[in-house]
Amino acid sequence: MQPSWEKHYAERTQKVTGSIIRELLKLTQQPDIISFAGGLPAPEVFPLQKFQEACNTILGSQGPQSLQYSTTEGHPPFRKMIAEDTAREGIKIPPDLVQITSGSQQALDFVGRMLINRGDKIVVESPTYLGALQAWAVYGAQYLTVPMDEHGMRMDKLEEALKANPKFIYVLPNFQNPSGATLTLERRQELVELADKYGIPIVEDDPYSRLRFEGEHIPSVLALDARYRNQTEDNYNGNVIYMSTFSKLLAPGLRLAWVIAPKEIIQKLIFIKQAADLHTSTFNQMVAYEAARDGYLDKHIEIIRTTYHERRDVMLETMDEVFPTEVKYTRPEGGMFLWASLPEGMDTTEIFKKAVEQKVAFVPGTAFSPDGGEKNSMRINFSFCGPDDIREGITRLGTLLKELVYSK
Amino acid sequence: MQPSWEKHYAERTQKVTGSIIRELLKLTQQPDIISFAGGLPAPEVFPLQKFQEACNTILGSQGPQSLQYSTTEGHPPFRKMIAEDTAREGIKIPPDLVQITSGSQQALDFVGRMLINRGDKIVVESPTYLGALQAWAVYGAQYLTVPMDEHGMRMDKLEEALKANPKFIYVLPNFQNPSGATLTLERRQELVELADKYGIPIVEDDPYSRLRFEGEHIPSVLALDARYRNQTEDNYNGNVIYMSTFSKLLAPGLRLAWVIAPKEIIQKLIFIKQAADLHTSTFNQMVAYEAARDGYLDKHIEIIRTTYHERRDVMLETMDEVFPTEVKYTRPEGGMFLWASLPEGMDTTEIFKKAVEQKVAFVPGTAFSPDGGEKNSMRINFSFCGPDDIREGITRLGTLLKELVYSK
Repeated sequence: MQPSWEKHYAERTQKVTGSIIRELLKLTQQPDIISFAGGLPAPEVFPLQKFQEACNTILGSQGPQSLQYSTTEGHPPFRKMIAEDTAREGIKIPPDLVQITSGSQQALDFVGRMLINRGDKIVVESPTYLGALQAWAVYGAQYLTVPMDEHGMRMDKLEEALKANPKFIYVLPNFQNPSGATLTLERRQELVELADKYGIPIVEDDPYSRLRFEGEHIPSVLALDARYRNQTEDNYNGNVIYMSTFSKLLAPGLRLAWVIAPKEIIQKLIFIKQAADLHTSTFNQMVAYEAARDGYLDKHIEIIRTTYHERRDVMLETMDEVFPTEVKYTRPEGGMFLWASLPEGMDTTEIFKKAVEQKVAFVPGTAFSPDGGEKNSMRINFSFCGPDDIREGITRLGTLLKELVYSK
Repeated sequence: MQPSWEKHYAERTQKVTGSIIRELLKLTQQPDIISFAGGLPAPEVFPLQKFQEACNTILGSQGPQSLQYSTTEGHPPFRKMIAEDTAREGIKIPPDLVQITSGSQQALDFVGRMLINRGDKIVVESPTYLGALQAWAVYGAQYLTVPMDEHGMRMDKLEEALKANPKFIYVLPNFQNPSGATLTLERRQELVELADKYGIPIVEDDPYSRLRFEGEHIPSVLALDARYRNQTEDNYNGNVIYMSTFSKLLAPGLRLAWVIAPKEIIQKLIFIKQAADLHTSTFNQMVAYEAARDGYLDKHIEIIRTTYHERRDVMLETMDEVFPTEVKYTRPEGGMFLWASLPEGMDTTEIFKKAVEQKVAFVPGTAFSPDGGEKNSMRINFSFCGPDDIREGITRLGTLLKELVYSK
């Protein structure tokens, strides 16, 4: 009998297909395109020399141990360093509440695996992070979207969604991907209280908080939840699963991220990770720790901040100059993305194709919506391209947008 | 409201708990124990210097690209090398039928994610690989066990299981973990034909085939299936999902493995991996390729073979000397494990505790059975401990077994 895979697929696999967005984004890989579509860090800021030194140091000092199997939880000094860095938020996290994952995409997958039954409702911001939607599609998630404004998720709209008894609230409070918006302190406090009132967990995805160029750092939802429960000086046992990553602080090719959560959740994550991939690369954890420790990471993040700050400024200045005034865009205080909204009725998926012809690219807003919304918006990345390319690319995009807006 | 996670867990998570075996194995981590329990490669054979050279070469030649995000499928030259190595089996595999995974535990997880609905039946050898049982527990697999003898899975018992309409057949044909048994050529051919007759896919897990010390190499089930379908000179489009790993050939701490399968399956795996962890570490793939290429891997595997061959010989010689004749054990022609069977009625989980008191450890057989079988057997690893420790540890174990067998 010729093999027929179709009938062997699990129910979840039958629904797994390529997205239109993924197909569109292949167009951005032509070499002469200035692409603001990707979410890539600037390769210029990768700490190559430090990393090379760290590789040699680790192979010398740890020897074969650095290439051997290791614990599912993660490399102990690495977890300890992460716990200590978290203490700056005014919350004392013991290292055993830190789980290392292979990138934060894996943390999103594990959260889905742990919490989502087919048909469960998840509260997300609109727009929200594409990778989370991809991770949770496997588990059959349904979504309740809460609109955002320039101050992040609108709390006056959240309570309505919580009454529908969702599994958890997914929030990206700092320089959100894709919108660039930051949730204010007041709203974070409100979020903590509302989640507590309805007994709904919060999944806080925080890749960018240390990439702030201006304004004051706002404590994480994790830290605020701990304060709300008076758990700042003890083991955290609250309502938040927090995740962050080294992809934007050191280098994404290492696939290193982490989760901080109550002991009970970490325990589950250990079993989940054991079954999923045993553990994250021993060598990469040791090398990243070696490179980051003793204050190097802080100094290195300064370089990233300065670089992205300049690029954001160049982008906003050029936009102010060349974009039609009918196009509104966010002015993020950090991170890697901003969000532009065109007049109602315009469709950025259509505009994307015209932009590619003009050799410039972005991601159409609808990629960030679980329900086909955000049609007239686009995500624009400012971390990857250098200042000259930003000026040139934004000018091309502005010219096209003017044409389209004024011909309407 | 105090957070209560319990009611938020997905159905699959509620069943996720620590195994008794996992708890037992913690006992083997005392420093003065000679442990044959783990499945660790000998750290002495890790190619440290070559690896260090490769790190420096890659950081020099590839620069920031080696630390950047990369494709979900895997590093192209790495996939090409794997495809070319596979050609030795007499089957032509194009590189785009190779998917890189983060260890073969991840490949097992992805197979489960792709194929298993809750309650689906999977055909496994008895005993079978513990890691597969862990991976598929998440997806609610049920098992149909087929007994093995010294020639691997018994084909006369397989057909019965296939009539129960399983989702796939899981087979570890070379120096099986845990039994050390190798499936004969005749049985492999029979397996291919039976699977074809009933239209049931085969998942071939092959971490050890290149670690053969004696006897002739037997072609993979993948290659035999291709031959059966006359697909040896074309794209493979048969019945087998094949997986192997660099964990036993280079070093497990890199978390590098691969899957070879028909295009349709690879396509699904790309979407699954995209959602699960985006891609495997760019740096690790580049460095492993750089270290392995141009024949180095072949030469290096010679060293591993020689080392494990000696250790297996020392172990078997010592067992022949000190084990009671009532204890039967396999004589694997390669790999890392052998399997000892005690007289019926003896319980190796009980004996494990006594062995740990005598400062020697193994894994009780029941860990490798989905239905609590294999109670009177044990898995013994011969790759990790050096010859002196093997002699000493096996002597301790033999002394204990004699006491127990003769006091019965």
